[in-house]
Amino acid sequence: MTPTPKPADHFSFGLWTVGWQARDPFGDATRPPLDPVESVHRLAELGAWGVTFHDDDLIPFGSDDGERDKHILRFKEALAETGLVVPMMTTNLFTHPVFKDGGFTSNDRSVRRYAIRKVMRNLDLAADLGASTYVFWGGREGSESDAAKDVRAALDRYREAIDLLAEYVLDRGYGTRFAIEPKPNEPRGDILLPTVGSALAFISTLEHADMVGVNPEVGHEQMANMNFVHSISQALWQGKLFHIDLNGQRGAKFDQDLIFGHGDLLSAFFLVDLLENGGPSGAPAYDGPRHFDYKPLRTDGVDGVWESARANMVTYLVLKERAAAFRADPEVQQALSAARVAELAQPSVAPGEGYKGLLGDRSSYEDFDVEAAASRSYGFVRLSQLAVEHALGAR
Amino acid sequence: MTPTPKPADHFSFGLWTVGWQARDPFGDATRPPLDPVESVHRLAELGAWGVTFHDDDLIPFGSDDGERDKHILRFKEALAETGLVVPMMTTNLFTHPVFKDGGFTSNDRSVRRYAIRKVMRNLDLAADLGASTYVFWGGREGSESDAAKDVRAALDRYREAIDLLAEYVLDRGYGTRFAIEPKPNEPRGDILLPTVGSALAFISTLEHADMVGVNPEVGHEQMANMNFVHSISQALWQGKLFHIDLNGQRGAKFDQDLIFGHGDLLSAFFLVDLLENGGPSGAPAYDGPRHFDYKPLRTDGVDGVWESARANMVTYLVLKERAAAFRADPEVQQALSAARVAELAQPSVAPGEGYKGLLGDRSSYEDFDVEAAASRSYGFVRLSQLAVEHALGAR
Amino acid sequence: MTPTPKPADHFSFGLWTVGWQARDPFGDATRPPLDPVESVHRLAELGAWGVTFHDDDLIPFGSDDGERDKHILRFKEALAETGLVVPMMTTNLFTHPVFKDGGFTSNDRSVRRYAIRKVMRNLDLAADLGASTYVFWGGREGSESDAAKDVRAALDRYREAIDLLAEYVLDRGYGTRFAIEPKPNEPRGDILLPTVGSALAFISTLEHADMVGVNPEVGHEQMANMNFVHSISQALWQGKLFHIDLNGQRGAKFDQDLIFGHGDLLSAFFLVDLLENGGPSGAPAYDGPRHFDYKPLRTDGVDGVWESARANMVTYLVLKERAAAFRADPEVQQALSAARVAELAQPSVAPGEGYKGLLGDRSSYEDFDVEAAASRSYGFVRLSQLAVEHALGAR
Amino acid sequence: MTPTPKPADHFSFGLWTVGWQARDPFGDATRPPLDPVESVHRLAELGAWGVTFHDDDLIPFGSDDGERDKHILRFKEALAETGLVVPMMTTNLFTHPVFKDGGFTSNDRSVRRYAIRKVMRNLDLAADLGASTYVFWGGREGSESDAAKDVRAALDRYREAIDLLAEYVLDRGYGTRFAIEPKPNEPRGDILLPTVGSALAFISTLEHADMVGVNPEVGHEQMANMNFVHSISQALWQGKLFHIDLNGQRGAKFDQDLIFGHGDLLSAFFLVDLLENGGPSGAPAYDGPRHFDYKPLRTDGVDGVWESARANMVTYLVLKERAAAFRADPEVQQALSAARVAELAQPSVAPGEGYKGLLGDRSSYEDFDVEAAASRSYGFVRLSQLAVEHALGAR
Repeated sequence: MTPTPKPADHFSFGLWTVGWQARDPFGDATRPPLDPVESVHRLAELGAWGVTFHDDDLIPFGSDDGERDKHILRFKEALAETGLVVPMMTTNLFTHPVFKDGGFTSNDRSVRRYAIRKVMRNLDLAADLGASTYVFWGGREGSESDAAKDVRAALDRYREAIDLLAEYVLDRGYGTRFAIEPKPNEPRGDILLPTVGSALAFISTLEHADMVGVNPEVGHEQMANMNFVHSISQALWQGKLFHIDLNGQRGAKFDQDLIFGHGDLLSAFFLVDLLENGGPSGAPAYDGPRHFDYKPLRTDGVDGVWESARANMVTYLVLKERAAAFRADPEVQQALSAARVAELAQPSVAPGEGYKGLLGDRSSYEDFDVEAAASRSYGFVRLSQLAVEHALGAR
Repeated sequence: MTPTPKPADHFSFGLWTVGWQARDPFGDATRPPLDPVESVHRLAELGAWGVTFHDDDLIPFGSDDGERDKHILRFKEALAETGLVVPMMTTNLFTHPVFKDGGFTSNDRSVRRYAIRKVMRNLDLAADLGASTYVFWGGREGSESDAAKDVRAALDRYREAIDLLAEYVLDRGYGTRFAIEPKPNEPRGDILLPTVGSALAFISTLEHADMVGVNPEVGHEQMANMNFVHSISQALWQGKLFHIDLNGQRGAKFDQDLIFGHGDLLSAFFLVDLLENGGPSGAPAYDGPRHFDYKPLRTDGVDGVWESARANMVTYLVLKERAAAFRADPEVQQALSAARVAELAQPSVAPGEGYKGLLGDRSSYEDFDVEAAASRSYGFVRLSQLAVEHALGAR
Repeated sequence: MTPTPKPADHFSFGLWTVGWQARDPFGDATRPPLDPVESVHRLAELGAWGVTFHDDDLIPFGSDDGERDKHILRFKEALAETGLVVPMMTTNLFTHPVFKDGGFTSNDRSVRRYAIRKVMRNLDLAADLGASTYVFWGGREGSESDAAKDVRAALDRYREAIDLLAEYVLDRGYGTRFAIEPKPNEPRGDILLPTVGSALAFISTLEHADMVGVNPEVGHEQMANMNFVHSISQALWQGKLFHIDLNGQRGAKFDQDLIFGHGDLLSAFFLVDLLENGGPSGAPAYDGPRHFDYKPLRTDGVDGVWESARANMVTYLVLKERAAAFRADPEVQQALSAARVAELAQPSVAPGEGYKGLLGDRSSYEDFDVEAAASRSYGFVRLSQLAVEHALGAR
Repeated sequence: MTPTPKPADHFSFGLWTVGWQARDPFGDATRPPLDPVESVHRLAELGAWGVTFHDDDLIPFGSDDGERDKHILRFKEALAETGLVVPMMTTNLFTHPVFKDGGFTSNDRSVRRYAIRKVMRNLDLAADLGASTYVFWGGREGSESDAAKDVRAALDRYREAIDLLAEYVLDRGYGTRFAIEPKPNEPRGDILLPTVGSALAFISTLEHADMVGVNPEVGHEQMANMNFVHSISQALWQGKLFHIDLNGQRGAKFDQDLIFGHGDLLSAFFLVDLLENGGPSGAPAYDGPRHFDYKPLRTDGVDGVWESARANMVTYLVLKERAAAFRADPEVQQALSAARVAELAQPSVAPGEGYKGLLGDRSSYEDFDVEAAASRSYGFVRLSQLAVEHALGAR
């Protein structure tokens, strides 16, 4: 039997995922619009814990204040009825043509100012709804020609915007944390902050760097051929994994937003293993939302929408079981030991030894038996194969 | 006539580039070994300014102290005779089987200690030869299976090694700066610090972060589908472009190390434009070595070695001329203005305005004419086409 | 001065290119609709020779017969006024949701029948307008999961459809030739007949293979990391280059449809050289339309639409000049000779020699001086560099 | 328990796979040479059925006739002792520098003649050893610059060589079939016949096309972002899957030659399903050797060599079990039916109907309810998820 999702699993979904009408660059919508209130109810029935959204997902762009309030009220009622929470919110700075050259980094200063204001307004709502994380996906911040964008000036403006918004949140006492979502390209030819690494580097320059982390998406990193588990590891290592977008992708191509596990399945296994068992002594390495940012296949009707929502969660839970069994297997423990995986946690230089001690240790260099060390097998084949067999449920 | 390279152009070459014997994963060497002394002389004749090397390029692995001294002495004589300088040096932590699981991040602690010692020894030589930059390319720091490498522990060890070596350099008063060279994969399935962004992020965590920058290579970034000009721009923006490796690559495939310009030629044009004219008021954005890290085609004999060395420099100089003409063209100036490229350097919020001022400015949001702003053309097509025509020497 | 396009250059454009309203997967349209009649006039003014279209570009999907006739009449008048011809037409089997699982290879048989009928109807119009080439881009023929599509059955249906339509054209005496346009992915996760090679292979199985060729698109091949010049060469070699789609792409990512030359500029140079000078004795290797299938940048207004149309043609003409100069340069001739490029046209076995003669020739094997042959330089570096310098207009 | 490989499973290995000494472009060998005789014995013990090789794997390049005979004799004895067969052989036309510009398509005619002779000699041995398939991997047939290779002439020479060798085999009555192995790049910048499709297209032009098929390799197709299951399907559809190379690859990068299943695991599941259950009524779609062309990880010693050999076979067998369960699951049968997967095997036009019948069927077009057809869900999500769950052994 496949496992059943429940709120304690902390699964969340974007309104724009199940609500995607399946309009793509070459085709019209294949599904009718979905009422956010219905999405909340259906997700709750399926065992989800949270729901997330861009401002325009809930409140159509251009709504007046009265309409806006009505949309919010209906939504809050649905949350109350279902118990779903809103762990994250974000801004749409990409659909309307005004953002065609970006929001925070548009060459047009008036657009930049408008974009910042649009975020501010939605930050108030995020605080009202208790969203503790606010995501920034700068999908339009980029260029198609290097002639048209002064990237260093763009990064100045990006920083200016984030710094200003951080100050706003701090002054208001909202307690919201920011999470930047990298993506290498699409819809722009090249997007600024293309990978988790570049976003982490950017964050290190911010005035309130402590309240800004990343929101990596499986497919976005894989579009750049990055090893997603490595990217997540570096984000965790820098204390910056504030949120995560789970989905699937099949290589360096357009952004597919497949169901989690329907892309690189082996990487999905290792990702769940890292998130759930990757901490010291096997504790979860990440305790935030397990958020799905995917698209139900365009070939399917509304049945496929809910089937796919469920599929994301079930696959995650199956992989969690597989990862637990992997960690618990004595043969795996033995193989990890043979592969010296834990030895890497041991500092290369002993406490107090310093480079001077190392220089004085002839066994480290002058008398080091290079050939003997070179001939030792790391036994990585056996360990990798145990992982594959566990992923397949074959042990 | 094509331009003639001269030392003032600050072109430098790795000994391993012209000296590559053309052994590849499927084939044996096609060229005889090249004496480093000959390389120094030939490069000087061609107009180069500097030469760089890994320890083992000059001093074969396993040489005893006497042999080592002889190799160094001969090399110094060649430098003295030709006037070539050694602006950069680096360590080979990848050829010998002892490094098969990495140097600083090998699961085997004794290998890590040996690797650090190997670097230390070569840092002394770098100081002796006046190399102001020391490059770290961790080509073996990585993995093929996520089961086999605890990436967070690996980053701890990577940092430990760099911190220790920085302390060593500081204590000795060498004045050397470090430059980390990112690469996404090959020879490892996935390499740690795969892109410029991830290296910059890593550097931000170092004890002596101020003395550590990056050494981006054209092909390495392009293997991950990164826009190299964007990557370099972020490195410059963070004050971290300490060195650069120029070459060519044709997309996401094995590391080709083509001649500069023989890969993505349009990107090469924009790169040279950024390096030479990218600063405020058109000043060079980078004043370090123009270093070529490429491989002469395996099909060619020694003639192709020197022909290719020259080709790298000539193409750079042609592109420099093209970029200067691009910047000087009044039509380009007009197109840049129409595209509001410089407007991006203007802060989005006026001095002293802050978010409070922005909130109070109804013209920024409440009264902002979104449709009017959306309908303005950025004129990027014209600007891009002017760049292409200048690259082609057609204006 | 940049060259001026004229009808004799045989440049053609799809109505959907200049008419693209710039709706993308993450954003709404940024430009108003363009009347096909206006496009015809503007393209003619810019020096184009032909215009092409999908049925639905001219006649909105669902038009009744009366409306259809009006659209066609107006369009014919514009053609008559401008002298523009319609060298190619094609069918839209991808925008309407009915085609969400494909046209000819939809799992739903009734959709397949409908798709074939839609093509038939438009083939009549193509004949009426004198279009000699009819393109099949099966953008929706594919899958996201290997479970959902029996690829061999799909190829059976694909062949059935093409065979049937070929028979229809033959019976009617239209004289139309078919050209299949390959693409690896987008909008489907994987598209059938992903590359020029797979389309050529498919064609070899058709009942009327002689009337079916390919319509390769620069960006589509480059999305799969194919060398476009190699792909075109194989198509020419098999006598199957019936049409070509020129544009630009920057690596393995979403389908960018950039202006020709704004992607891989060096490959564009070699492509134009092949098309214009690639035949025996330097004659054009291809005499069909130079057709642009690109998208004006979404950031630009209507000004960018016409500027980009012009840019495609100008860049082609500049590259044609560069290629002519390259071929005419005595140094290039010498380098080609040194590189033995023409020697490859000489059969490996002499006329009448056969394998028996070869077996009897001891100089070919038993007495062959392998080391001497191995040590000969091919001089490819010099030849490549001459090409780069010519592309840059530097010689 | 994981399944145990046995000869009836028809697993075969290249001598060069287990025998790879782990020399890579950046590093020296990490393992000692392996005696082919030992490999035969070890593979037999592990349950393999066949062994394959390049001429130079068994008989070092340059061996004289006496040495050659001794190597062959020892090898035959090992085969006799173990019962292993030699189902396939091939030629090394890539390691020696003489082949630096290719074998059959070198610009140097004398090299082309030598290459053909080298193959002839080895074809005699293949016949002697009973190898029914002879593979051609033209790894050096290609170029780095489009200036240096006349691709159409190269294809002429490629065809000339294959035609000649086919005639040789026919005249001698060897009964050998040829299988061309495509690869997009590495070691050449671009290799001729880069994908299964281009090889199939080339084969259609051969004089003895019926005796020539393809030998697709998982990683080679995936380096070009091809869906391997689609590629294999087209090869099967054209009756040309003569042999297959199983391994693993993680995206568009250097040729990794990972253990089967250690790359794209979900694609491996669908591949095994196709090979084992893909024929009409669930029969195997392919009955040839299950051949592994992989490299044991360079980090591992000889232990990893045999562990990895075993791992390839075990993973294949686990996936075979998973695929059988997938096909047998009533829910899967129902989902396949709902997704109309089998309906695609039904011709679009009824027997005898022809295009005329279709034209006359108003229900196919004039009266077709497009919107109703568009609104039907294909149910691909459910089917895909069932496949994922079966792959994970979760049902």
